[in-house]
Amino acid sequence: MRIDSRAAAAGLDDADELAPMRARYALPDGVVYLDGNSLGPLPIAAQERLAHVISHEWGRRLIRSWNEAEWFTASERVSGRIARLVGADAEEVAVADSTSVNLFKLLVAGCRLRPDRGVIVMDRHDFPTDVYIGHSVAELLGRRLRMLDGGEPAAALDGDVALFALSEVDFRTGARRDVPAVTAAAHRAGALALWDLSHSAGALDVDLTSAGADLAVGCGYKYLSGGPGAPAFAVVARRHHDALRTPLPGWTGHADPFAMDPQYRAGHGVAQLRSGTPPVLSLLALEEGVCALDGVAPAALRRKGSALTQLFIELVESRCPGMGLRLVTPAEPERRGSQVSLRHPAAYPLVQALIRRGVIGDFRAPDIVRFGFAAAYLRFVDVWDAVEQLRAVLTAAEHEDPELARRHTVT
Amino acid sequence: MRIDSRAAAAGLDDADELAPMRARYALPDGVVYLDGNSLGPLPIAAQERLAHVISHEWGRRLIRSWNEAEWFTASERVSGRIARLVGADAEEVAVADSTSVNLFKLLVAGCRLRPDRGVIVMDRHDFPTDVYIGHSVAELLGRRLRMLDGGEPAAALDGDVALFALSEVDFRTGARRDVPAVTAAAHRAGALALWDLSHSAGALDVDLTSAGADLAVGCGYKYLSGGPGAPAFAVVARRHHDALRTPLPGWTGHADPFAMDPQYRAGHGVAQLRSGTPPVLSLLALEEGVCALDGVAPAALRRKGSALTQLFIELVESRCPGMGLRLVTPAEPERRGSQVSLRHPAAYPLVQALIRRGVIGDFRAPDIVRFGFAAAYLRFVDVWDAVEQLRAVLTAAEHEDPELARRHTVT
Repeated sequence: MRIDSRAAAAGLDDADELAPMRARYALPDGVVYLDGNSLGPLPIAAQERLAHVISHEWGRRLIRSWNEAEWFTASERVSGRIARLVGADAEEVAVADSTSVNLFKLLVAGCRLRPDRGVIVMDRHDFPTDVYIGHSVAELLGRRLRMLDGGEPAAALDGDVALFALSEVDFRTGARRDVPAVTAAAHRAGALALWDLSHSAGALDVDLTSAGADLAVGCGYKYLSGGPGAPAFAVVARRHHDALRTPLPGWTGHADPFAMDPQYRAGHGVAQLRSGTPPVLSLLALEEGVCALDGVAPAALRRKGSALTQLFIELVESRCPGMGLRLVTPAEPERRGSQVSLRHPAAYPLVQALIRRGVIGDFRAPDIVRFGFAAAYLRFVDVWDAVEQLRAVLTAAEHEDPELARRHTVT
Repeated sequence: MRIDSRAAAAGLDDADELAPMRARYALPDGVVYLDGNSLGPLPIAAQERLAHVISHEWGRRLIRSWNEAEWFTASERVSGRIARLVGADAEEVAVADSTSVNLFKLLVAGCRLRPDRGVIVMDRHDFPTDVYIGHSVAELLGRRLRMLDGGEPAAALDGDVALFALSEVDFRTGARRDVPAVTAAAHRAGALALWDLSHSAGALDVDLTSAGADLAVGCGYKYLSGGPGAPAFAVVARRHHDALRTPLPGWTGHADPFAMDPQYRAGHGVAQLRSGTPPVLSLLALEEGVCALDGVAPAALRRKGSALTQLFIELVESRCPGMGLRLVTPAEPERRGSQVSLRHPAAYPLVQALIRRGVIGDFRAPDIVRFGFAAAYLRFVDVWDAVEQLRAVLTAAEHEDPELARRHTVT
């Protein structure tokens, strides 16, 4: 069906089984929020929950809340909910620290699972922190990094490779890798597969178990709406639990955390991926973020996300022709994440001009305008409105306003 | 002056220059909170601040708050305030991650500053996580751990030692090490000094600069009242900045974080100790925690803390004689932190019986009752009341109540 009016887009919303989910999020009036892949919006329940946590649990009950208010088990509760969203068992997921720190743990642990192999494969276009951490781990363990240049990993996989670490979705282009196929290629070469799901979890139909993935990490504050800098997660397939060994052992990951044992005894399975005391306020906000996705299947999120990105691409083509926009994200729905990136020579001021009109996307150097489409709370009319505003900005050359210059973005 | 009545204790409060600070904290009625060395109480300003951060900054302004609400510079702001409390320059302190993760960074960085030396000195009685991390770093870098057994580090320091990592205050006994003397001994041996200030910052007159300390880490949720699991801090003396190299490089520690540079270029000095995105809600709560200590000198906190612990020790001696309590903490004021630990054969149920009476301390295996004395909000009458409740519990043998059995504590 060709959508050629706002009313037609509204018709898609009427038929959208996920439409009621939008009410779970606090979305300001007059804003089309296409930056949920950078910072997901506030789940409405988080507001009241955190107020109670702060004033009552911390303020009145103090230290007693670790048990009484179940702070100590929050990490496990959140793990269980994230597990469902990435196709893993609850016992395979740990919530702790930042994505960077979790990647460090799993890169070291992954290399230890393949002690006779000297190479880690990564992609130079991957999220910068991932690459920085890769270099650091390679140096610490005396391994080598073999860098892809955006291509297929299969050619880089040989008998020297311990593991690869790649993002499922490229943060800049939105291209999606074929997780089952790349994982299978790694296994054929005797290597392990480590996936960064930062731009996948909560948006795509991730299924680590059926893909046979070994290890994964991901971010809590994008599609999971866990709040700014929310704790991240780490996944280890059960078959590796016995041999798993973290480089960051801490008291909360000890088999008996409250024994204050001078000897470290790793907690069962992924429990050892918890290190120090978790940032409870941020962790409980994340709990509300993942609870907001309760009752919805990852496949349904993916289906709607694909429809949103497809509509956006079609509308940009039909409503903004000859305006200097070039699609960076793969046109084939199965090859993209829940994101559309467009190149434009004046990408930065274009993003700023759109924000001024209430359409929030973001800029990625040097010339990319990036829009994230979160199925949980976006409507098809939002897509329509976003493209109309884009058209209006470009038609009126608002992006040439010299005031729109100062650069600052956050992933 | 001998204090032999509640009125006499109240007289000390009348003369206490820090007494007005108590109004900055939310302290529940009927509670004497002697567990601020485990989880500091809620600073009153944190409640309103976090409500605004959540509903307005996250909820309404969304991604824009990274710049607009200055989330991105929060870590630096908090660093500046912690610097004052530990006698360091603002540019020597970074706030990020947990204490465990920061200790990992600085142990690795410290060994790299002494590449020709193979030994790390720690103490087997130190906080367990510290020791676990020490073992992990030694293994990763091919170094050896040399373990003290609670004694003086001087004898363990020789030409093989790269650095020691020790807590200034023993979390269990409350004994305080002589930071300047031990640091000087390390330097005489050509080694570096790394101090864990978790039980010092915000309570003692820590002065890293005049002690000549090289490296330090510390906790945000004890005497700094940053909230449960608040981010931790790391300190590196300026003379080591040029050679500093973290094993956990991340985008927020990059010299130009927003460039998304595929090559890591470390931010100046301690900036590189920031790794991934910080947990903003927890970080801003910590900001309120350190702001609550504005205007008070560390020496004043130390002076009052010493007076509180001294009064407690004297009152336990005079009011609870022959009740099975034995002082673990050094009797000399200069040799203890802001904490008093007592041994008692039924320590665990004794702590529980005290909590039932509103006196919150904590238990440390196997037989220690631990009381923390935070000068910022405790009164001398609180000390009086705590000892009277202790006496009442022991007199009535309330600690023999079999209901007080289940074990759970949190540091």
